[in-house]
Amino acid sequence: METIIEKFLEIAIILIAAKFGAEIMRRINQPAVIGELVIGIIIGYYGLGLLPHFKSGDVVSTLAEIGVILLLFEVGLETNLDEFIELGSTALLVALIGVVAPFALGFGSIFALGLGGENQFEVALFVGAAMTATSVGITARVFGDLGALKSKEAKTIIGAAVVDDILGLLILTVVAGVLGSSGDFSLVDLGVISAKAIGFLIAVVIIGRKLSKPIFNFFVKIPSPGTFVTGSFIFAMLLGAAAHFVGLHPIVGAFAGGVVAGESGMTHRIREEMKPLNFLLVPIFFVYIGSEVNIQTLASLDVFLYGMLVSLLAFVGKYVSALGAMGKGLNTSLIGIGMSPRGEVGLIFVAVATTTLSEVITADIISIIIWMVIVTTVIAPILLNRILQKVPLSERDDDERFESPVVE
Amino acid sequence: METIIEKFLEIAIILIAAKFGAEIMRRINQPAVIGELVIGIIIGYYGLGLLPHFKSGDVVSTLAEIGVILLLFEVGLETNLDEFIELGSTALLVALIGVVAPFALGFGSIFALGLGGENQFEVALFVGAAMTATSVGITARVFGDLGALKSKEAKTIIGAAVVDDILGLLILTVVAGVLGSSGDFSLVDLGVISAKAIGFLIAVVIIGRKLSKPIFNFFVKIPSPGTFVTGSFIFAMLLGAAAHFVGLHPIVGAFAGGVVAGESGMTHRIREEMKPLNFLLVPIFFVYIGSEVNIQTLASLDVFLYGMLVSLLAFVGKYVSALGAMGKGLNTSLIGIGMSPRGEVGLIFVAVATTTLSEVITADIISIIIWMVIVTTVIAPILLNRILQKVPLSERDDDERFESPVVE
Repeated sequence: METIIEKFLEIAIILIAAKFGAEIMRRINQPAVIGELVIGIIIGYYGLGLLPHFKSGDVVSTLAEIGVILLLFEVGLETNLDEFIELGSTALLVALIGVVAPFALGFGSIFALGLGGENQFEVALFVGAAMTATSVGITARVFGDLGALKSKEAKTIIGAAVVDDILGLLILTVVAGVLGSSGDFSLVDLGVISAKAIGFLIAVVIIGRKLSKPIFNFFVKIPSPGTFVTGSFIFAMLLGAAAHFVGLHPIVGAFAGGVVAGESGMTHRIREEMKPLNFLLVPIFFVYIGSEVNIQTLASLDVFLYGMLVSLLAFVGKYVSALGAMGKGLNTSLIGIGMSPRGEVGLIFVAVATTTLSEVITADIISIIIWMVIVTTVIAPILLNRILQKVPLSERDDDERFESPVVE
Repeated sequence: METIIEKFLEIAIILIAAKFGAEIMRRINQPAVIGELVIGIIIGYYGLGLLPHFKSGDVVSTLAEIGVILLLFEVGLETNLDEFIELGSTALLVALIGVVAPFALGFGSIFALGLGGENQFEVALFVGAAMTATSVGITARVFGDLGALKSKEAKTIIGAAVVDDILGLLILTVVAGVLGSSGDFSLVDLGVISAKAIGFLIAVVIIGRKLSKPIFNFFVKIPSPGTFVTGSFIFAMLLGAAAHFVGLHPIVGAFAGGVVAGESGMTHRIREEMKPLNFLLVPIFFVYIGSEVNIQTLASLDVFLYGMLVSLLAFVGKYVSALGAMGKGLNTSLIGIGMSPRGEVGLIFVAVATTTLSEVITADIISIIIWMVIVTTVIAPILLNRILQKVPLSERDDDERFESPVVE
């Protein structure tokens, strides 16, 4: 019983801290996810020590992983396949530049600075990959709060951010696969893992589009109470596990599962019934990541300075993605800044580095990435707020207030 | 990652099995809880071996314990303090006989049969205690399904069952405390533990009645999304932990927490927002208990025969509780049978025996208790259905269909 009570208290401490961090951020108009991460750093093992060092398979780390599965499932759920396919060339171009530019800047700078030690190439690859992330949730929230979600700028950013989500997951999968594989980097590995990832996504989406409706209809038809929410949960978990078995990260499967579930025509019900689960488990993921961060490393001068440099490059890399929207009468500053927050997607890279790549990615590098995530995520809403309050937009929302599905 | 995927699969297997078991039971008009338990026995470590042997503090056992915390929290939530205080003497008398008679029969028979080996006294005490349980959820469901919840018989049973819930928890706490304490049984231990348990309950309820409204209002006032459900969850967990720290079983704290939360005037919202959590976690508890049952022991002839004997005594013990309602123009058969299903409350005794008292309570005894729980829980609805369809009741429900909050 003693052990179980310990777990109860760990979970309670994490949830109280998460709510505290989220509420403080809300009051200063910052994303909740930053509050959850920072409070995790403060109370964590290397900080105040209110939490132990979690091992893989512990209750808290498992709940955190379930949290990130549910998060990606929800991101997938909100990704409309048809809209995605019909996505304009503008958003697609923004997305592509927004992946290539930050990756090049990240890879180049880490390599040039020689920060990776003996694993220079791999580390540069990973940091570059982490810089490709874009958090659609955070930008959508800021635009929504200012009633600007229906502007063409917002639609362009959100479309591009969704593409970046998918590309980012693919890059993460490939890079993690390459780094995790024994021996040196090889183009064959790269090819095999890319093919697997893309093949898996395509297969799940093609098969899933056909099976999604019957599967969720089946959940609806079983009268035992709770079947629908339990079924949706199992669906997300099993797709996560399936991705693992073909050698991908479970979140790729959860994302694909979400996309497929969104095709069932029951998106609203799935989202509503899963909400309390997400409310509880997603913040556990962010506090957990924070709690594993070595606060001393994070606060060391070297790491801080490198962190600021990488943050700047990360910002610039996304800012130039707005070039893809030039000459369309859109506010390119707005688009460039809107693409820059890494938010929860950046933290998924941190989690993967912490849990499965810690032999290659050192605590210093992880801390640099965390600085990059924090700075880009905190700065973007501040700048967006300023610009949005001054600039006339192509279109304003009337009454609809967007509720970010993800990072709440 | 491998370990985490293993946990994902364990959880998925348990949930699929639970839904399968629940749905089969629904089709043959039996309580879901029995289906979840039996399917757990079948797929568990000693059965098909689809699940490992869980240790305390493992992911699954922790989720199961959280499940039983949420279950008891919800039972408490549905326990109206005022109704309880104003409870008629009839229900109170039924409740008291319903505790004393089964306890005496259980204690006497186990002691007389010499089933406890060298711990005869303790084992007899525990089995007697387990026989005092009444599952309000299962009886309420049967009456509700037949539109008979507003009958005086139903109200009497439900009132008495709630009292039995509380008395059962107290008895469990005291017996587990006495058995768990080092050395021999002493009247001093008994007194100390009883005083603690009663004192804790009274203190929580008195303090809680005053603080409940401000606390839940505070959750409502914080605008960060998800605060209410997270706050309610933390509330239940912390009261469980508090009970542990004064030497009681966490479920006693969770129950008291539920009673107190019900005083906030926000019962409906708490119940609705916690629903998906209960749907997911409560069945994990029942499948988990089943999975730890040694199916060979359960199926051995000796255990089976003793199990049937104890089941008979358990049935008789509750049946005679209807004597407390004699001469009031009520259908006493209905009341006696309605009091008899042990359901989830009986299984909580099994869980405590498995997790913390396994040195004193052997697998044989646990199996006998499980037979008793299964038989009383399965037989009661069958008999109630028959009687209710024939007999005219004091009052029938019009439109309202009772949804059992607990065992769904």
